[in-house]
Amino acid sequence: MSTDRASLLPALKNLATQLRIDSARSTTAAGSGHPTSCFSMADITAALFFSEMRFEPKNPQNPDADRFILSKGHAAPILYAAWAAAGAFDRSELLKLRQLGSDLEGHPTPRLPFVDVATGSLGQGICAAIGCALNARRIGSDYRTYVLLGDGESAEGSVWEAANVGGRDKLDNLCGITDVNRLGQSQPTMWQHDLAQFERRWTAFGWHAIVIDGHDVNAILNAFDEARNTKGRPTMILARTEKGKGVSFTEGKDNWHGKAMKKDELEKAIAELEKQIVPGVGVKGPELIRKPAARERPVVTPTPVPPPSYKLGDQVATREAFGDALAKLGVADPRVVVLDADVKNSTYTDRFEKVAPERFFENFIAEQVMVGAAMGLSARGAIPFPSTFACFLYRAADFVRMAAIGSNNIKLAGTHAGISIGEDGPSQMALEDLAMCTAEPSFTVLYPCDAVSAERLIVEAARVKGPVYVRISRPKTPVIYPNDETFPVGGLKVLHESADDVVTVIGAGVTVFEALKAYDELKSSGTSIRVIDLYSLAPIDTKGLIAAAKATKGRVITVEDHYAAGGVGDAVAGAIADAGFAVHRLAVREIPRSGKPEELLERFGISASHIVAAVASLVGAAVVR
Amino acid sequence: MSTDRASLLPALKNLATQLRIDSARSTTAAGSGHPTSCFSMADITAALFFSEMRFEPKNPQNPDADRFILSKGHAAPILYAAWAAAGAFDRSELLKLRQLGSDLEGHPTPRLPFVDVATGSLGQGICAAIGCALNARRIGSDYRTYVLLGDGESAEGSVWEAANVGGRDKLDNLCGITDVNRLGQSQPTMWQHDLAQFERRWTAFGWHAIVIDGHDVNAILNAFDEARNTKGRPTMILARTEKGKGVSFTEGKDNWHGKAMKKDELEKAIAELEKQIVPGVGVKGPELIRKPAARERPVVTPTPVPPPSYKLGDQVATREAFGDALAKLGVADPRVVVLDADVKNSTYTDRFEKVAPERFFENFIAEQVMVGAAMGLSARGAIPFPSTFACFLYRAADFVRMAAIGSNNIKLAGTHAGISIGEDGPSQMALEDLAMCTAEPSFTVLYPCDAVSAERLIVEAARVKGPVYVRISRPKTPVIYPNDETFPVGGLKVLHESADDVVTVIGAGVTVFEALKAYDELKSSGTSIRVIDLYSLAPIDTKGLIAAAKATKGRVITVEDHYAAGGVGDAVAGAIADAGFAVHRLAVREIPRSGKPEELLERFGISASHIVAAVASLVGAAVVR
Repeated sequence: MSTDRASLLPALKNLATQLRIDSARSTTAAGSGHPTSCFSMADITAALFFSEMRFEPKNPQNPDADRFILSKGHAAPILYAAWAAAGAFDRSELLKLRQLGSDLEGHPTPRLPFVDVATGSLGQGICAAIGCALNARRIGSDYRTYVLLGDGESAEGSVWEAANVGGRDKLDNLCGITDVNRLGQSQPTMWQHDLAQFERRWTAFGWHAIVIDGHDVNAILNAFDEARNTKGRPTMILARTEKGKGVSFTEGKDNWHGKAMKKDELEKAIAELEKQIVPGVGVKGPELIRKPAARERPVVTPTPVPPPSYKLGDQVATREAFGDALAKLGVADPRVVVLDADVKNSTYTDRFEKVAPERFFENFIAEQVMVGAAMGLSARGAIPFPSTFACFLYRAADFVRMAAIGSNNIKLAGTHAGISIGEDGPSQMALEDLAMCTAEPSFTVLYPCDAVSAERLIVEAARVKGPVYVRISRPKTPVIYPNDETFPVGGLKVLHESADDVVTVIGAGVTVFEALKAYDELKSSGTSIRVIDLYSLAPIDTKGLIAAAKATKGRVITVEDHYAAGGVGDAVAGAIADAGFAVHRLAVREIPRSGKPEELLERFGISASHIVAAVASLVGAAVVR
Repeated sequence: MSTDRASLLPALKNLATQLRIDSARSTTAAGSGHPTSCFSMADITAALFFSEMRFEPKNPQNPDADRFILSKGHAAPILYAAWAAAGAFDRSELLKLRQLGSDLEGHPTPRLPFVDVATGSLGQGICAAIGCALNARRIGSDYRTYVLLGDGESAEGSVWEAANVGGRDKLDNLCGITDVNRLGQSQPTMWQHDLAQFERRWTAFGWHAIVIDGHDVNAILNAFDEARNTKGRPTMILARTEKGKGVSFTEGKDNWHGKAMKKDELEKAIAELEKQIVPGVGVKGPELIRKPAARERPVVTPTPVPPPSYKLGDQVATREAFGDALAKLGVADPRVVVLDADVKNSTYTDRFEKVAPERFFENFIAEQVMVGAAMGLSARGAIPFPSTFACFLYRAADFVRMAAIGSNNIKLAGTHAGISIGEDGPSQMALEDLAMCTAEPSFTVLYPCDAVSAERLIVEAARVKGPVYVRISRPKTPVIYPNDETFPVGGLKVLHESADDVVTVIGAGVTVFEALKAYDELKSSGTSIRVIDLYSLAPIDTKGLIAAAKATKGRVITVEDHYAAGGVGDAVAGAIADAGFAVHRLAVREIPRSGKPEELLERFGISASHIVAAVASLVGAAVVR
């Protein structure tokens, strides 16, 4: 419904007041929450939902609907209130805020159909918004992406990574709004109401900046108009607001962050707010909502991915096979996109770039926005592979955590894992990346050892739903699997087994080859071991591992190019513990250093010779009980 | 030695050429490395070491010596070459670059006496430099801090966190240099040689920016002069350079990133470089070095920290005791500093701020620079406690990794751990923080359950050398220890034991109280369990745990407010595995949600009732073997 500005303004003002009332009520009902952080953004929210955005309240996932990401996730109550006011669900639900039985949680998560990414860890929403905006280009849609940030949040470095990428990529379909309400949690923010500080920064980073009074609805609407008409760069609307706006005892007042009103305070507040309702406004919120253009979107049917074509025994790095698999996926499935952080020539993602340059996103050296943008892309139907050296994915650990919470369909790929990279030294060695990803309950964690398994597992990663991590190595390793071998997620491969096996040795990645060397060496001296390639750490083949442990009288050795905590050993131990089996772990147990890969495997205790010694010691020793 | 500019310039030019030669030679000897990234910064390095900086080559840790941090750590060869040229060690050592036996690693680490923090994960050095600069204020020294960044590195968000803090804190004793050599690893950088892009950004962030030709030594010296004379804000020198400068076949050329020259290329390069040596320059590098002012510094003797003073049974949150302990430490030890990220009123670090405001550093919502600055402060003798909600420390995971590599003496404190925070929901719940810190071999990880142990362990954290993490909880918990109880690092407390114990139950933090409840419940039905408070996860009391496991016939249950991977269960399992014992783990195994703390402990399987059920099941079940 189109409405002239003069009649629109009072309607929006009333909607904003209603949103304030609902935010206050729901947080008081919950006994906690951030009502005053909602009050400051109420006018902006009303203008956004009931005039600017094109969306369908009952079908928020319409691929051509505008997106709204609440980067300052603690203002969740007003997000919920806005969707309720739009008609997405019944307003009475709001009073279940923060209860165990309700999806209206303290901070938004994609359990709610209208939430694309979980927010609440500040500085992430704008990175996800970059991904949503890039996705519009991918699918050729004119939908716009809106993201609302807090002013305190703007101190997060990830915001400026997003600012760089948004400016460089000229994302004029992206509009940020910073709710400059001056007050942080514990004190005034760094720049308080000095809007020029914000303006200077965003302009320097290549954005169109607009400074407005964030409680002047007409100014807000004008700013949205200006943003929509700004071409070649994204817009950041810098809205000067008051925290706690609209209620005399909270407006601009300290010590109200993250506090729900007491019942008597709530009554006073509602009385004050209700007085602000402009009488005689007939129009209702849902009538004002603009709809996205109706558009048929063809169903995407990916073509089959050609199988690997290696020769057994050839020396091929898994990172190279990774690049090849991506290139094949790029041809087969238009949903697959790749994000890089200036290492594409080492990770071999440049092979994807060659076949699908329009779906290859270069973030330069900025891992947080790389993963954050992947989260946004995945929320809009893409299958993104954010890829860099495994150690640098760790820079985005908190994004990984939030992607797990949101169960985003992202496929992290980390190359150059472990000490087997050699001379570059510890700063380039990922030795905690498995811990980062196996910690998260929603993650699938895969770890190929050869080119065939690498290609197969990359295709699996794209296929399974939810967040996946694939750990990839730097060195060349021999191809040990035939091209038609399959690698189901949650499986393992028994590479050697016999009835005489005295110990089960479990490797993954480069240590599979150390286990195989140890097998040969022990075999020649008459000792037989079972060798397992644990290519899937999560989910893990508990049954297969227990069977092996049983067959080798509970003697289990793990060997991994990772620190002792949170890696292969812990994963195996966790899987077989309830069957009563313990695990002897070979892992990196001190800070490593530069050296040749084979020297380092030896020095830090994860080479074949250490496996042989561990087998001897386990077989020799009576198991203490 | 003071030298006039006219005779200084050719000397510095020659030193720069020598540094290029040494960088080329050492990387070719190593067979890997980044010679061309050294070439671009050679003139800057020569000017810095042999004219600008005041330091003692043989005593780099002089507390009044200027600091130099190489943020682009991959240019390590020229850092080493400069220190060798200064006389810190013999130049012949340079040819051992990247060998296992040498401390001249691929990227710098504090194994070398002249390196303050490990670099090589980009964007971190400037954060550490903030800490070094803050430390000069703490100790009342006029030393200056220099930090050299790469241009590609400037895309990292952490750089802009540091920029904000440096500008806000008016750190005019800090001087950055950006080596704008235009070429990244895989392609030209985002802004290439558009120096205005850099200038705009640094100026907007409150720095004095100076654009120069980074190969014009005179211009470099003038820029350093200007920086030294700029008051009230830090300076960023933006130096336009050529990657591979000085050698015809590398200068400004693509595809030379991270590549050592082959032997024949090296010979050609050296021949070209040697031709650039200005003849007849008599003065040698070491003669040019400026010395720091000689100054007596009194030895710091901290006073004893008053013991805790709680009443058994009182309800006190560990976070509150943490704040009290910090306040006591603040009075007792002038080396102790606290860094906050706008949550001081929730973590109670504001109690430290009250007693030692000049040693309290507010970073606002920017966890990376908070931890990075702590690394720099610790390198200069401070004992920093960077503190925020445990989940947000995860934003700085990669800094934690690098602090572990550098064995920096930082004391991370993370409050609001786990699902026991309740209604705020999963984004605010740290459930992987123990994994982050136990993964690192050099970390001490502590986890108090009550106010007495919290105070005691905070004091221990300050006392032990190296990186420490203290996990702190939100809810009030009863005081269970007398005020004179001691908590040695690496210990545990057996809270209940008897000869009849059938199972050992190990809790930590809030789950200690669930274990105690389970004990009471089981006791009343005639079952006796051993209850352990595992307040020290790393180091861990292996002997004590094995003794308990033996006493309870190998039946061990862990219960933790953390995900299953990398937490208490894995730590215990790792400790007792080689004695043949497995661990039954109760942990959070799915993405949690908002709710009341007690509801969540129940719902996600870590409450007393789950412990009781697990005990029953373990005792009932025959142990499979």
